[in-house]
Amino acid sequence: HAQQFVKADIPLPPPTQPPTEVLEPDKKTPDSWLPRDPRLIRLTGVHPFNVEAPLTDLYNEGFLTSPELFYVRNHGPVPQVHDEDIPDWEFSIEGMVEHPIKLTLRDLLEQYEQKTYPVTLVCAGNRRKEQNVVRKTKGFSWGAAGVSTALFTGVVLSDLIRKARPKRGARYLCMEGADKLPNGYYGTSVKLNWALDPNRGMMLAHRMNGEMLRPDHGKPLRVVIPGQIGGRSVKWLKKLVVTAEPSDNWYHIYDNRVLPTMVSPEESANDPKWWMDERYAIYDLSTNSATAYPAHEEQLCLVGSEPNYRVKGYAYGGGGRRITRVEVTLDKGKTWRLAKIDYAEDRYREQQPRELCGGTLDMEGQEASHCWCFWNLDIAVHELAEASDIFVRAMDESMNVQPRDMYWSVLGMMNNPWFRVTIAKEGDYLRFEHPTQPALMPGGLMERVKKAGGNLANGYWGEKLGGPEAEEP
Amino acid sequence: HAQQFVKADIPLPPPTQPPTEVLEPDKKTPDSWLPRDPRLIRLTGVHPFNVEAPLTDLYNEGFLTSPELFYVRNHGPVPQVHDEDIPDWEFSIEGMVEHPIKLTLRDLLEQYEQKTYPVTLVCAGNRRKEQNVVRKTKGFSWGAAGVSTALFTGVVLSDLIRKARPKRGARYLCMEGADKLPNGYYGTSVKLNWALDPNRGMMLAHRMNGEMLRPDHGKPLRVVIPGQIGGRSVKWLKKLVVTAEPSDNWYHIYDNRVLPTMVSPEESANDPKWWMDERYAIYDLSTNSATAYPAHEEQLCLVGSEPNYRVKGYAYGGGGRRITRVEVTLDKGKTWRLAKIDYAEDRYREQQPRELCGGTLDMEGQEASHCWCFWNLDIAVHELAEASDIFVRAMDESMNVQPRDMYWSVLGMMNNPWFRVTIAKEGDYLRFEHPTQPALMPGGLMERVKKAGGNLANGYWGEKLGGPEAEEP
Repeated sequence: HAQQFVKADIPLPPPTQPPTEVLEPDKKTPDSWLPRDPRLIRLTGVHPFNVEAPLTDLYNEGFLTSPELFYVRNHGPVPQVHDEDIPDWEFSIEGMVEHPIKLTLRDLLEQYEQKTYPVTLVCAGNRRKEQNVVRKTKGFSWGAAGVSTALFTGVVLSDLIRKARPKRGARYLCMEGADKLPNGYYGTSVKLNWALDPNRGMMLAHRMNGEMLRPDHGKPLRVVIPGQIGGRSVKWLKKLVVTAEPSDNWYHIYDNRVLPTMVSPEESANDPKWWMDERYAIYDLSTNSATAYPAHEEQLCLVGSEPNYRVKGYAYGGGGRRITRVEVTLDKGKTWRLAKIDYAEDRYREQQPRELCGGTLDMEGQEASHCWCFWNLDIAVHELAEASDIFVRAMDESMNVQPRDMYWSVLGMMNNPWFRVTIAKEGDYLRFEHPTQPALMPGGLMERVKKAGGNLANGYWGEKLGGPEAEEP
Repeated sequence: HAQQFVKADIPLPPPTQPPTEVLEPDKKTPDSWLPRDPRLIRLTGVHPFNVEAPLTDLYNEGFLTSPELFYVRNHGPVPQVHDEDIPDWEFSIEGMVEHPIKLTLRDLLEQYEQKTYPVTLVCAGNRRKEQNVVRKTKGFSWGAAGVSTALFTGVVLSDLIRKARPKRGARYLCMEGADKLPNGYYGTSVKLNWALDPNRGMMLAHRMNGEMLRPDHGKPLRVVIPGQIGGRSVKWLKKLVVTAEPSDNWYHIYDNRVLPTMVSPEESANDPKWWMDERYAIYDLSTNSATAYPAHEEQLCLVGSEPNYRVKGYAYGGGGRRITRVEVTLDKGKTWRLAKIDYAEDRYREQQPRELCGGTLDMEGQEASHCWCFWNLDIAVHELAEASDIFVRAMDESMNVQPRDMYWSVLGMMNNPWFRVTIAKEGDYLRFEHPTQPALMPGGLMERVKKAGGNLANGYWGEKLGGPEAEEP
């Protein structure tokens, strides 16, 4: 299917090889019918299926991620939908609307304009492992690859919602999937006026990189909410309900929140008021970045090396806000260097309206930035040899900059402090370490610092406060 | 005029006493016809008029600020408009639109729906004095009172712009005032799709707290852009121009930008590329907060005091994003306490549609938060006595939290690190100090630390790195 991209001056989806074999671990689960890619790192044991790609593999695929390496966050068994049943997949728009609508996927394809554009999805738990090393949260350990980008094709949500005509007083749009879980079907909500704003790019999608959605990604129909945490992009969509109040779905209330940092796991378990406070629900992604190169445990030979090393990684903002600068420090924040930023998304934006993947690519008027960007910076190898670490931080167009220190919270979400890579000199080599490794994989500088007795919460990355500043008045 | 508010369960504008006397310093300036309030602190000598109220006075007025204490940022002489000429004040909507419009203020009043709602305006330079103490910027020294709130009445900008029908390819809305300056009329721009989004609340306003705009605030007509830096809210409005590119007005390019922190004043003067890069233009306010009580130099007697002291202040977010938590630390960020937040704006939001100040108050569908909030926290006096400082930080609904450390930049804008108040024990008293005093006024803890030889950029507020952590591995 790559044919359709051939003459494009836009990034091509990477070559895809849809998995054909059911993996051994899945065979004893409800997903035993579902082939998957063996490179994916499982974060919650065998089932449900929650995975990220190895960070280097993810970065190497480029701007767009193949569906088989695209991160997955499932709460339970994947709803199985046979191809012949897809056109008859039913869903509804109901609640506080003048015109409730019930339609099939066939109707959606026939009666509405289809659009295609790239969107980056990010799990609210991206980089959570770092929080878990500092202090155990209630969430499982994502590394820094809980983020992926694809071309999604479908119908702009505002077109649908406007047709249903929300009533005065309506403020929220609740969504519900077909995945039956211990606490009911998965569901959540967003603000209605966000859903009505086409610039926010919310979409009901049925295609991903030009092919039908795969089961782990919501086949046959999902919501795609750019710029917000992945948990709002409901998969296997069955219901949209316009309401005056936020969703009362169990997963809306007890997940995807950042409680104030002083609320302990015990306190949060004992007092439901912390969960009922909608102020602590998270929607927009927080500004974030990570370094892909140097990779974890990469070695750089000092003998005969190029004079410069190119440090590279990704960054993203939330709520459609563009990353306007990425800065790198080799001296723990005393001085900063400006990295180069590449926004591949802009190359779609600059296209004249055209067909792409079964929808129209036409980003006219879509000012908001819905994708990650890549950054890079050339650093002299001798400077790296003299430094003990490389920190990176991004800032968005609203001056939201990644914080120096972690904001720990009981669910461990939205972790976004400066991303640190340490540099160790070992003979003729520099060896680099990332903060953590995903899931239960050992390794990473934070674990090392902690094992050596460092207090990771001491405001200095667990290191001794030393050096010349310690002597100042 | 306070009559109209009598039975409201919404905050009343504070009593107002329009100044009647021209102040001595103004008598030799082009503004010699303009009476002003003597309490205002002048930040740029005598002329142009740039002022903030004393922080305590500002806070004591409450949610709404009287026009006479509302901060002022003028670039030159105030355009003088006589009352009899106001209805004939002309302005235009032109550029990339199907239907250019020329209209008078009379037309605006007669032909368009008038709305009233509260908006907080903030100068991008609010708290800049702190940056100037660390390292001199190119901007003058605002304290923490470059922020004020009023009920504005006028026409929602999107109503007007839609009537003019922007053409395909239009992306920006340029605005120009009647204030003639050395580099032309003051002008700037915002993104067109923001101006078209009624949820953002952009407005052409002619009234403030129920009375006609006063000259320093744009009489007879100004733009009001909630959630963005004050510099975008053009006063004495004459022209709206829809364009494909951002404004090329001198003040748009050489002001209201946050260049990357490593760009020095010299570098920025030598290389125009830094100014031409629209990524460094600032629009949304950054998350910010300050403490009003304890006030600077306030003293608290430990003998016979109440058991608790109520720490109080303000906070605001940018881009319509609500402050969702305000946190206070007495141990430099090791542990945090949660303050209470009061959003007076919500009391307007909850009103049924009604007349107010010559417009309709009806915030249905206006989800965004356009005003400051007040926070407070009771702290045991004995805890204050044991602490050396009180830091406060706010976080918005997108997890944008004030940074620990300052992001210095050449124009010194958007300064928003944790707001620090130090505590000194002096006999039976605690004495409190704020970071700075506005303008050239001496005083404040930063100046004191600097004079004592502390390096304010050492990442520890210029203090010696000491204490137990210094001993850790």
